[in-house]
Amino acid sequence: MRPPLKGYCYPLTPSGTSSLVGPPPWHYATEYLNLLFRADPDKVAPFLPEPLEPGPDPGLGYVAFSQWWSLWQDRPDLAATHPERTQYREAAVWVGCSYRGRPGQICLFIWVDNDFSLARGWFMGFPKRLGAIEFSEYHPLNSLMPPLESGTVLRGAALAHGERLMEGTLTLRDRISPQELPFPLARPLFHIRHFPSIEAGAPPSVLELVELGAENVRFGEEVWRGEGTLRLFPSDLEEHTALGKLEVLEGYHYHSGYTFPGGKVLHRWS
Amino acid sequence: MRPPLKGYCYPLTPSGTSSLVGPPPWHYATEYLNLLFRADPDKVAPFLPEPLEPGPDPGLGYVAFSQWWSLWQDRPDLAATHPERTQYREAAVWVGCSYRGRPGQICLFIWVDNDFSLARGWFMGFPKRLGAIEFSEYHPLNSLMPPLESGTVLRGAALAHGERLMEGTLTLRDRISPQELPFPLARPLFHIRHFPSIEAGAPPSVLELVELGAENVRFGEEVWRGEGTLRLFPSDLEEHTALGKLEVLEGYHYHSGYTFPGGKVLHRWS
Amino acid sequence: MRPPLKGYCYPLTPSGTSSLVGPPPWHYATEYLNLLFRADPDKVAPFLPEPLEPGPDPGLGYVAFSQWWSLWQDRPDLAATHPERTQYREAAVWVGCSYRGRPGQICLFIWVDNDFSLARGWFMGFPKRLGAIEFSEYHPLNSLMPPLESGTVLRGAALAHGERLMEGTLTLRDRISPQELPFPLARPLFHIRHFPSIEAGAPPSVLELVELGAENVRFGEEVWRGEGTLRLFPSDLEEHTALGKLEVLEGYHYHSGYTFPGGKVLHRWS
Amino acid sequence: MRPPLKGYCYPLTPSGTSSLVGPPPWHYATEYLNLLFRADPDKVAPFLPEPLEPGPDPGLGYVAFSQWWSLWQDRPDLAATHPERTQYREAAVWVGCSYRGRPGQICLFIWVDNDFSLARGWFMGFPKRLGAIEFSEYHPLNSLMPPLESGTVLRGAALAHGERLMEGTLTLRDRISPQELPFPLARPLFHIRHFPSIEAGAPPSVLELVELGAENVRFGEEVWRGEGTLRLFPSDLEEHTALGKLEVLEGYHYHSGYTFPGGKVLHRWS
Repeated sequence: MRPPLKGYCYPLTPSGTSSLVGPPPWHYATEYLNLLFRADPDKVAPFLPEPLEPGPDPGLGYVAFSQWWSLWQDRPDLAATHPERTQYREAAVWVGCSYRGRPGQICLFIWVDNDFSLARGWFMGFPKRLGAIEFSEYHPLNSLMPPLESGTVLRGAALAHGERLMEGTLTLRDRISPQELPFPLARPLFHIRHFPSIEAGAPPSVLELVELGAENVRFGEEVWRGEGTLRLFPSDLEEHTALGKLEVLEGYHYHSGYTFPGGKVLHRWS
Repeated sequence: MRPPLKGYCYPLTPSGTSSLVGPPPWHYATEYLNLLFRADPDKVAPFLPEPLEPGPDPGLGYVAFSQWWSLWQDRPDLAATHPERTQYREAAVWVGCSYRGRPGQICLFIWVDNDFSLARGWFMGFPKRLGAIEFSEYHPLNSLMPPLESGTVLRGAALAHGERLMEGTLTLRDRISPQELPFPLARPLFHIRHFPSIEAGAPPSVLELVELGAENVRFGEEVWRGEGTLRLFPSDLEEHTALGKLEVLEGYHYHSGYTFPGGKVLHRWS
Repeated sequence: MRPPLKGYCYPLTPSGTSSLVGPPPWHYATEYLNLLFRADPDKVAPFLPEPLEPGPDPGLGYVAFSQWWSLWQDRPDLAATHPERTQYREAAVWVGCSYRGRPGQICLFIWVDNDFSLARGWFMGFPKRLGAIEFSEYHPLNSLMPPLESGTVLRGAALAHGERLMEGTLTLRDRISPQELPFPLARPLFHIRHFPSIEAGAPPSVLELVELGAENVRFGEEVWRGEGTLRLFPSDLEEHTALGKLEVLEGYHYHSGYTFPGGKVLHRWS
Repeated sequence: MRPPLKGYCYPLTPSGTSSLVGPPPWHYATEYLNLLFRADPDKVAPFLPEPLEPGPDPGLGYVAFSQWWSLWQDRPDLAATHPERTQYREAAVWVGCSYRGRPGQICLFIWVDNDFSLARGWFMGFPKRLGAIEFSEYHPLNSLMPPLESGTVLRGAALAHGERLMEGTLTLRDRISPQELPFPLARPLFHIRHFPSIEAGAPPSVLELVELGAENVRFGEEVWRGEGTLRLFPSDLEEHTALGKLEVLEGYHYHSGYTFPGGKVLHRWS
């Protein structure tokens, strides 16, 4: 009998050694430019299907522009052998939520610039699409570039299918400790995993509420806080402007790292 | 009660109007550069898990370089409003197979250059990854370019994660009718749909054998046949060379179109 | 004595066989989506330094979205060996002008998506920058796509450095002959070639007015005319909006081809 | 009289405020992965036209994979307003040379991934073409990534027109001071500036030997040295393999910064 094919994900093969993404655990480091906003809770709530509930401060959310360095467990040397498979940027819109009284966050819209991250995101319930992300970088040896200090401005922007979708800035002011990062930043992720059926008119093959694990969460020494700005641009292909007017509260710039061990299914809708 | 979210696929939203891919039917037109090969049947068979069986001429397969123009049913004007969402190129490796005595084909490896096509492919069991595809084009008003005639050479190439993976050429010789296209070209698709679980160590959430429908299949007037060449380059990230030595038999260049109405699940492995 | 290096352009080498662009003649075929506009002549005139003069209908210009298939004379087989080096898209803003009473046109702003075309453009006085260009395509074998007929809409768009810069549409109405294409379309090119000095504060190494030759100009059978729309979006990196309000008159869709034999210097400013 | 147009480079406009590149001084910071090699001096010499001479150790050269953060003087805030215009990667092949007894270096082949850097390079005599460059990055907060220490491996790779052209690795061993960086690294640049005429058969409009200035040269604290590997892949579009067999001696990883004030013409060939 011909045995089944192997692989964590496509492509499935006899040896299963060329999957686009290797299985968890997944190890990440991230540089964040996060812009905390308050939206109208009545515009956020429709994005939280039961059993998800609004968060403790309904309407709170943030836009995150980020740079990532990642590895899957069974290819620890990928940054040396295939660097391109370990680097990407993202831009995302997050809102706070809760599950059975536990505060958390959910990602509503997100764009990334690499296919392995897009795929891995779908497995985790991140609704990733492909895009280009801009992110300010300052190098200490460029004599005209300021250091990261009070007054320095960072900008992020997201572009997809030829349209500029979001941009934000952060003017650094002072430093805080990671514990001061406000809800919903750095809170547990409650995500909605989905995969369509291929049979016309059939319900999704996968529709489940999951909690995504996070282990060994570490932060860089410097967590900057400051004034933020945010602009979302409409597109008739997108609904990221559906949250309505976003009042920007504050912004944060920091590095963090964690390991994803896997997730847990909390609820199935199909 | 807050109703469930909507959408054919990510992102799921209250109105479901910004899915990366709209639901079927899907309408396609394609320009193909196909290179028919014979591989060692013992190298092909491991890629066909039961209940799939080898095809009537085991070892036959083809590499397809292609250009696509596509629409989903509920956005018929997308080529006018968002042209970028209707155009892409692909490079794929196909082998013949059969299901309960019915000859067909299955795509083992495939790269595409647009995210909506990558996603839609996954729903259909195409193991798509992102890449860049080269495809010769000849324009009749360029005075130095030959017309498509006996002796004209077309080339396709596929590149992913910074590595050149495949290239092939076709030297046009004569024209045939579409009915002469050999097995497994233009045969039914028997595909393996897959979506991982997010729980560590759990079996896949989706693992099913499907047959993909095809309606209203049309061919362009000219179907060219000729001599082909093929070169596959190894990558330690890929297994497209796992079929071993490929003896190129013939090549074909033609246009075709069809409508995908949906698929049918034949067998579930999980 | 070690002989000088060779090559039509960079890189210069002992054999000169890897220049980014081969020497003229250059052979082109083009698909155009052109949107004729009228601008305020007082806004156009500053872009025409003496001895250039305004055109016979000052203020007339057009935005051209285009697809190109090109070859240089000494690599006639490049579409077969390196297809990627023969295909590109452009988006450009043209205005009418005249030189010593001879009507012509000059390209003020232009973006292209391939480096060999960017370089070749600079040699010809085209101020090319890198961008992404969208261009509607309709394939007759896609059952949901209309044919090119009265009422069909084509769209072009240009994007650079993460910003959408221009977009335009054409609703096809009727067909005309190529001779009916209005000034300044298909008129002689009077361009300004420039190359900076590398010595701080020095005048340019090259600053000359040239006329670009065109031989063997051919048109496709169908030249469509119709209603056009145009939108230019501001960027603080760009001045393409400097022509002010553009009144769109008409639009045209057609294919053409020509051979560039070389140019002639009319005037030197340095 | 309509005044001449302004701008450091294309596009030339009445105000000259949208040039692809602003005028010098140019401020740079760079992260380098450099692989020192020895080639056959008889293969290097033909690339050095008189009055250039071979370097003190003829045949010495290096391949540099690099990441850049740059600004032009009159847009000091570009990293905050348009980050994408300040970041790029390069891959280059350098050889030692000398001019009137003064040791220096010249860049023979180079690929970059951004248009403003390609243009600026041409003004400086860098024969830049567009490509994609891979470069290993290790983030301290990724728990699976090693720190930069003895044994850590960095890889660079260069890709252009769909072909992989070069790749190299460096296994870090120990640290050295910047002053220990061997010839020709960090030595004066003697470059060949070129711009073709547009008149068929005419000699180049610009062909000059220049020395490129460097001020305020600074180095990061850590300069790593170690064992290197190098592989160059042939392409019939390229001549980067023309130096023949490259014996890799050592590799270096470090950061540096400098300001380019402008260059000086040493010799004109046309």
